[in-house]
Amino acid sequence: MPIIVQKYGGTSVADADKIKNVARRIIRTRDAGNQVVVVVSAMGHTTDELVDLAYQVAEKPAHRELDVLLSTGEVVTTTLLAMALHAMGCPAISLSGAQAGIRTDAAFSRARILEVNSARVVKELEKGSVVIVAGFQGITADMDTTTLGRGGSDTTAVALAASLGAAVCQIYTDVEGVHSADPRLVPEARPLAEIGYEEMLEMASYGAKVVHPRAVELGELFNIPILVASSFNDNPGTLIHGGVSMEVRNKVSSVAHDLDVAKITVVGVPDRPGIAAAIFVPLAEAGISVDTIVQNASITNVTDLTFTVTRSQLDKAMEVVAPIARSIGARECATDSSLGKVSIIGTGMQNTPGYAARMFGALSQAKINIQLITTSEIRITCIIEEARVEEAVRALHQAFEIEVQEK
Amino acid sequence: MPIIVQKYGGTSVADADKIKNVARRIIRTRDAGNQVVVVVSAMGHTTDELVDLAYQVAEKPAHRELDVLLSTGEVVTTTLLAMALHAMGCPAISLSGAQAGIRTDAAFSRARILEVNSARVVKELEKGSVVIVAGFQGITADMDTTTLGRGGSDTTAVALAASLGAAVCQIYTDVEGVHSADPRLVPEARPLAEIGYEEMLEMASYGAKVVHPRAVELGELFNIPILVASSFNDNPGTLIHGGVSMEVRNKVSSVAHDLDVAKITVVGVPDRPGIAAAIFVPLAEAGISVDTIVQNASITNVTDLTFTVTRSQLDKAMEVVAPIARSIGARECATDSSLGKVSIIGTGMQNTPGYAARMFGALSQAKINIQLITTSEIRITCIIEEARVEEAVRALHQAFEIEVQEK
Repeated sequence: MPIIVQKYGGTSVADADKIKNVARRIIRTRDAGNQVVVVVSAMGHTTDELVDLAYQVAEKPAHRELDVLLSTGEVVTTTLLAMALHAMGCPAISLSGAQAGIRTDAAFSRARILEVNSARVVKELEKGSVVIVAGFQGITADMDTTTLGRGGSDTTAVALAASLGAAVCQIYTDVEGVHSADPRLVPEARPLAEIGYEEMLEMASYGAKVVHPRAVELGELFNIPILVASSFNDNPGTLIHGGVSMEVRNKVSSVAHDLDVAKITVVGVPDRPGIAAAIFVPLAEAGISVDTIVQNASITNVTDLTFTVTRSQLDKAMEVVAPIARSIGARECATDSSLGKVSIIGTGMQNTPGYAARMFGALSQAKINIQLITTSEIRITCIIEEARVEEAVRALHQAFEIEVQEK
Repeated sequence: MPIIVQKYGGTSVADADKIKNVARRIIRTRDAGNQVVVVVSAMGHTTDELVDLAYQVAEKPAHRELDVLLSTGEVVTTTLLAMALHAMGCPAISLSGAQAGIRTDAAFSRARILEVNSARVVKELEKGSVVIVAGFQGITADMDTTTLGRGGSDTTAVALAASLGAAVCQIYTDVEGVHSADPRLVPEARPLAEIGYEEMLEMASYGAKVVHPRAVELGELFNIPILVASSFNDNPGTLIHGGVSMEVRNKVSSVAHDLDVAKITVVGVPDRPGIAAAIFVPLAEAGISVDTIVQNASITNVTDLTFTVTRSQLDKAMEVVAPIARSIGARECATDSSLGKVSIIGTGMQNTPGYAARMFGALSQAKINIQLITTSEIRITCIIEEARVEEAVRALHQAFEIEVQEK
């Protein structure tokens, strides 16, 4: 009997009625002849409320304690869902991350899964039960509870699917699937029937809101197809997988964007080896996540080095970079904190000419100035004024509409 | 360094400020040169809210799932208290029942502690940490979470104290200690400085509201002194222990009462062996808890057999008893559901004459009719009209005032 792993996010289990709705969906999947493993998040805003409580008693709660605290939210949901299934006549059992064998390192609040020992899950499946596992949590070798950080429940679901050899990992959420662009910005954006793992990973912040990149990476690694769909209707959703057909792979599949971009330009950097390391190693040590990096090739002996960070990290980044810039003899550091990012994404894009030209053309026609350009194998990104991002996304979505529609 | 186990109930940890107050009390105990292990209940009404949630999704939630659900309440408190201690510069670590080695049987929702493996607790104490343990919960051999039922957190505390060889188990709550009578009924009731285990056990429902009898029994078994005191002030509270001095042991220590008493009298029972078993075995099998049992010695061949149950179990008890009464040839079954119970308690009471006479005299003076009388080694109980219980408690408290004061 095939195994299906389903994951339901916080909004899908926000109250008793929504939990019953999820129970009915699970029973339908089981009645169709599948063994079902379910991973759940904490109900609604539970996690935020627990975090609030923690900050009421301590300014800097220890990560170990915060992890134990937050892990209770998912446990609550597992038990309620098991009860709802029982009430509908379906055998079910709740398991904590520890009971489900989610073994992690001891990096509290951002633990990585080391191993999934799914013996207990398998045992319960063999008894005929639906197995409900608390997402977002695991256990260390010392039997301490950990949480997996951002995207934790998605990651739990895909890791379990990989460990169990599941046919598919279904991520149920409050959106219809992955769209060709963020539907809040582009009303005409349509859900994609399928998308490749890498394209999904390139969708940046919009994509991460749908399924966390960690889970997508894990899916790619173990070749687990991931279906993203709404828990509130029966629309087909989007299948993220590796088998996307060649024709589709050559198309632009989506337009991604990010509104939270700040830029630092170190102007007049001496063009010699070791300069990039001198800047980016200290930034990494300070815990600052650098996104885009662009360095213009120099024909003189000096060059400009530009990189982007999130707006909230700009000041901290400048504290690190300004003294370094002085010590390496750069002319100045310039910042701009009102930027955004817009990208077109499609596997194999670089093998097909003309995409970049069309992208720049569409932005030019909309009179949107491009500040920085970076590209990857499957993505072309422009950094532009934040105020123009929405317009840019719509313009690009329209410019590449034909391809999107053909999917 | 002596080990002290402290237990804080739900009202003592109901919000962030109360948790900080508890943290300060713990630090004072630690600064006085003790190793401190703390057992906590769920915050305020958390448990009730979780039970509500369960009944929103299922009419009859499975005990296994209910136990996992409820166990999260205590875990939340442990982490918040650990964070509050950290914020005050005190090393502390939270442990679940499982981590603290509370091994139980698999009787979900009313599990019994089989063993306490306190290795982890000892390890953390040796590191200099305050160890905070989630009360009310344990783990089975199959690694399933259980709850201990009523009095669970008190029982966890005393069991840990026994396992660790603690000097004392301190139960902090929202009352000042054990009083000579229920202070809500007898305003002049005063807190007792000390009381024996058995007297405490005889205090029935009032005593059980202060410390659960399971915990008192366990304390007696392992000879762990139990201090009951308020977490909101520094009053000394009441020490429950086995070393109460001989003089004190001969006094009436308290007046207990119970307002929830219903009586069934099987009238005209043939006086032959096996009759009591024929009635009480089926009652036990039906899960009905019988309290007082009185059978008048018969001089004819028939006798009356009277017993009491809680009011809510009266109908169910009658369903069991009525057909049995017919089959054994009893004349009839009579019930009275508006009764109450009043007792005087004092160790060694039966070795000192006159107590019963003074009790009956005091009730007679107050014109209170006695329906049933039962006695034990350390207790004399009268069943009376419910409406007169309050008056009876006050009359008895006054009649035995001298003894109480001498303590």
